[in-house]
Amino acid sequence: MAAATSFSSTLTTPTPSKTLKPASSRSLLCNSNLGFSSSLSSKTFKPLKASSDNISAGVLGAKMVSSVPSVKPMISLDFETSVFKKEKVSLAGHDEYIVRGGRDLFHLLPDAFKGIKQIGVIGWGSQGPAQAQNLRDSLAEAKSDIKVKIGLRKGSRSFAEARGAGFTEENGTLGDIWETVSGSDLVLLLISDAAQFHPLQQADNYEKIFSHMKPNSILGLSHGFLLGHLQSTGLDFPKNISVIAVCPKGMGPSVRRLYVQGKEVNGAGINSSFAVHQDVDGRATDVALGWSVALGSPFTFATTLEQEYKSDIFGERGILLGAVHGIVESLFRRYTENGMSEDEAYKNTVECITGTISRTISTKGMLAVYNSLSAEGKKEFETAYSASFYPCMDILYECYEDVASGSEIRSVVLAGRRFYEKEGLPAFPMGKIDQTHMWKVGERVRAARPAGDLGPLHPFTAGVYVALMMAQIEILRKKGHSYSEIINESLIESVDSLNPFMHARGVSFMVDNCSTTARLGSRKWAPRFDYILTQQALVAVDNSTPINRDLISNFFSDPVHGAVEVCAQLRPTVDISVPADADFVRPELRQSSN
Amino acid sequence: MAAATSFSSTLTTPTPSKTLKPASSRSLLCNSNLGFSSSLSSKTFKPLKASSDNISAGVLGAKMVSSVPSVKPMISLDFETSVFKKEKVSLAGHDEYIVRGGRDLFHLLPDAFKGIKQIGVIGWGSQGPAQAQNLRDSLAEAKSDIKVKIGLRKGSRSFAEARGAGFTEENGTLGDIWETVSGSDLVLLLISDAAQFHPLQQADNYEKIFSHMKPNSILGLSHGFLLGHLQSTGLDFPKNISVIAVCPKGMGPSVRRLYVQGKEVNGAGINSSFAVHQDVDGRATDVALGWSVALGSPFTFATTLEQEYKSDIFGERGILLGAVHGIVESLFRRYTENGMSEDEAYKNTVECITGTISRTISTKGMLAVYNSLSAEGKKEFETAYSASFYPCMDILYECYEDVASGSEIRSVVLAGRRFYEKEGLPAFPMGKIDQTHMWKVGERVRAARPAGDLGPLHPFTAGVYVALMMAQIEILRKKGHSYSEIINESLIESVDSLNPFMHARGVSFMVDNCSTTARLGSRKWAPRFDYILTQQALVAVDNSTPINRDLISNFFSDPVHGAVEVCAQLRPTVDISVPADADFVRPELRQSSN
Repeated sequence: MAAATSFSSTLTTPTPSKTLKPASSRSLLCNSNLGFSSSLSSKTFKPLKASSDNISAGVLGAKMVSSVPSVKPMISLDFETSVFKKEKVSLAGHDEYIVRGGRDLFHLLPDAFKGIKQIGVIGWGSQGPAQAQNLRDSLAEAKSDIKVKIGLRKGSRSFAEARGAGFTEENGTLGDIWETVSGSDLVLLLISDAAQFHPLQQADNYEKIFSHMKPNSILGLSHGFLLGHLQSTGLDFPKNISVIAVCPKGMGPSVRRLYVQGKEVNGAGINSSFAVHQDVDGRATDVALGWSVALGSPFTFATTLEQEYKSDIFGERGILLGAVHGIVESLFRRYTENGMSEDEAYKNTVECITGTISRTISTKGMLAVYNSLSAEGKKEFETAYSASFYPCMDILYECYEDVASGSEIRSVVLAGRRFYEKEGLPAFPMGKIDQTHMWKVGERVRAARPAGDLGPLHPFTAGVYVALMMAQIEILRKKGHSYSEIINESLIESVDSLNPFMHARGVSFMVDNCSTTARLGSRKWAPRFDYILTQQALVAVDNSTPINRDLISNFFSDPVHGAVEVCAQLRPTVDISVPADADFVRPELRQSSN
Repeated sequence: MAAATSFSSTLTTPTPSKTLKPASSRSLLCNSNLGFSSSLSSKTFKPLKASSDNISAGVLGAKMVSSVPSVKPMISLDFETSVFKKEKVSLAGHDEYIVRGGRDLFHLLPDAFKGIKQIGVIGWGSQGPAQAQNLRDSLAEAKSDIKVKIGLRKGSRSFAEARGAGFTEENGTLGDIWETVSGSDLVLLLISDAAQFHPLQQADNYEKIFSHMKPNSILGLSHGFLLGHLQSTGLDFPKNISVIAVCPKGMGPSVRRLYVQGKEVNGAGINSSFAVHQDVDGRATDVALGWSVALGSPFTFATTLEQEYKSDIFGERGILLGAVHGIVESLFRRYTENGMSEDEAYKNTVECITGTISRTISTKGMLAVYNSLSAEGKKEFETAYSASFYPCMDILYECYEDVASGSEIRSVVLAGRRFYEKEGLPAFPMGKIDQTHMWKVGERVRAARPAGDLGPLHPFTAGVYVALMMAQIEILRKKGHSYSEIINESLIESVDSLNPFMHARGVSFMVDNCSTTARLGSRKWAPRFDYILTQQALVAVDNSTPINRDLISNFFSDPVHGAVEVCAQLRPTVDISVPADADFVRPELRQSSN
């Protein structure tokens, strides 16, 4: 309760926030209550009261309801491991269990991977190269003789790249996809979602992969997408294999880059969730944890395949990519229409979010963004936050339910089939978005940008962006996700993994070059955020709609801030370095990778 | 072939098109080949050639493929009627069967409705009042003693309105919903899609309706939505009833308004499709045809419930509402950014489409829009058409497949549930879109508009709009819909029913006030059309991408123009009259109507 009060007090008395990234966090007792995690019961949401039977829509569609803290109990995701040390952390009053990573744990890998002689990595897209190399390097460090072998389709152009990374036919670490699947004890299926449903294949690829797997072997996924697809078509995994997932909360290139950077210290990387979906012989949990530790995950938290695909597909349509794109389009248009120069408008939207705001949230949390503003800036932030929160939540809520119902996954599968001609209709591969005027301005701004420049802090932009982040957190919370998952999908992956890349290359570069599933989602949802902000939030601001004080007060007292602080203690000391020409793999441009 | 040539020749030698709305069309032999319908085999699409294995995306995402005329044969939709006269019409070389309407057929209604003593009309939304009144008036004209009874939920505010239209408890033509369902031999279920899935009901309404129906009675729908929902949830209609549909290709208010206007002549109305989904005793076809004739449908064509919901839900997300909204937002922004005054930009987008272009297409067809332009205007039209066709088709194609896969229907059902609080999250009724700047400009423009003014004909706007129309026609054609359905859903409903209302009140009024399913769809898809036009079509224009001549040539020679001409011969002589303050029922604002 003291913590909640102290957070609220920052409203009137800005005090320097604690740094959320201590020089060395490994010695902190992270399962202790840090004082930020027990405020849930004392400071609950105090929303506006509105008649619930009035469904006629005003300019602001959402009617706030009298709400209760958290209707659904978070799913209990406890697990047993005989190899690693399980730790309990308290996040916003919820106990969650994690395994902390580090290079000093690599000696445990042979034990975790008991019974595994070969790990097959299928696909050389985004996660494939990163995970294969990290696994190989970590196993070498542990002096294990487990072989990591890349399996590619015959004729794939990725053979050359895999050889370049040291995987060769000669030493048996590179080979045909089907021979690799049938010869491996752990098969990591890392081909892109889209490639799994290529319309010209006789059967969906995944069915063929299932049929080639050894009985009692383990299928490893880095995404729950496949489960979502199986569910929506009434199918299931074969019963004679284990099915696990380790899902890094960042792109493959980040997973590899941080692992390399982290060799100087005791490791660095991207947090991962893990899930055990089927366990035929009791080995699944330790294999999954070993896999995650070998990738360099600073911490690993438990989830289910279902919770994973819901939060992941939703998150990339939300703040990670789709929503941030829609927001900057909408605000750039507004600022220029109101007379701001194009260069300034670009700086005050894209640069501001991917630079200053992200760095501030990453190191000091969301409240620090507000606290660093002048009195006038704070008012502008509040105006923007108050007008944007429900419109953002409206679209996020719809998006979450479309993902959870299977519609969004079906839509991705159908889109993948439209990349090719069929039924007399032409092929429709995705078009580029980066040729419009705004993104040309961005090129110019970046070209003239001093090294290390993080852009201005525009209070209105900050208010909209933080409102979006809080709305996403609230949707995931009400839908029963764990705080580990919520914070990784809504905050850490955004400010620590994706936004730094976007700062280097522009939002449009990410929208044009990330995974097919995310790119499709961004094209679908970015315009929705743009329209609803324009039609509702900006109209409310222009009509001088009063600031919703309860909403602002809820923001200050939200227990998530304390939970973010706990997660920050688990962060490694290394910041990701992204050069100005940073590139990342776009899997479907490597046609032969799967 | 002669016809195709003569259409092509209009490219170079604009000749006055035949009027498509003759003073009296009843004497025309509409099942004869009018010379416009046989060009399919001679003039096939000659698309750009492109490598089909190149899936990398250019600015223009679509790659044209070498195409064949129409891969799927159109579904054969022949039917037998012992009461009405079935006629064969040849549309673009396809034989289709229709029943022509007219007040002179009302004397056949008692025969068509054999065994029916009471027709229950459930719901008083958009179609309910129109259909109930038309049916009652037509049966009275035929001196039939079949009773038309309105069934409403207890306490519904619609009781008063129904009484105002002459339905009363006293004479047994107005009563409780459940008593009406169980006492009727034909039950017309005309409550809104959204109302059928109210989240606060114990069970979905339709299940309760099924359970109250008499064995061997007939369920009548005006939309295939319910079948789509049943399919997506693995359910079905009860087996002991017949299930039919009569689906007017226009709003309820148009169905009633034209019926009343048509009393002076031999009837006027909105064309309808009909479907027989289950027929327990052989009466279904004639009951459906009788229902349609009683509504005043100028002609009735056959479809299936599945084809109906696919084309209908798709069509309103496309040119009927969603796409037209996205197009005018995109073009208004472009024109003002390029220096046009706001009032002029509004006139050259919205007014131009809902006025001049619609009237021209309605009376003289799509080619006449092109032919009425100057040489310079023609070039601008071609530029716009060429740049917009594939981007429009890209989104339409995605939309069609999302509808056909059940995702769009599921999304509507989920959205309806979010209108109310649940799971600790607030209620999100739909917000208004009409408060943005563009629609304020529209109010001003309409207020100053001289009576009867149809706005300018802007060649670029015309090119985009007609490209959209042709892209929608092509998608429906390749997906196997009949030409009757294609032309009604893509052209007639647009220019004859909806656009006149939009001309009176603005596009935003329609987006804010039509059926829940359409409003949701428009919010979802309009921004997609806006973004893809802005990101691809307008970029291509600004980059001076050459006009795709094959695309333009395909437009001139498309067999649809001849088919449109045939349909136009079947049009009644009466134009719908829409006063400037025209209103129409928004079903969910009448909460008690269902």
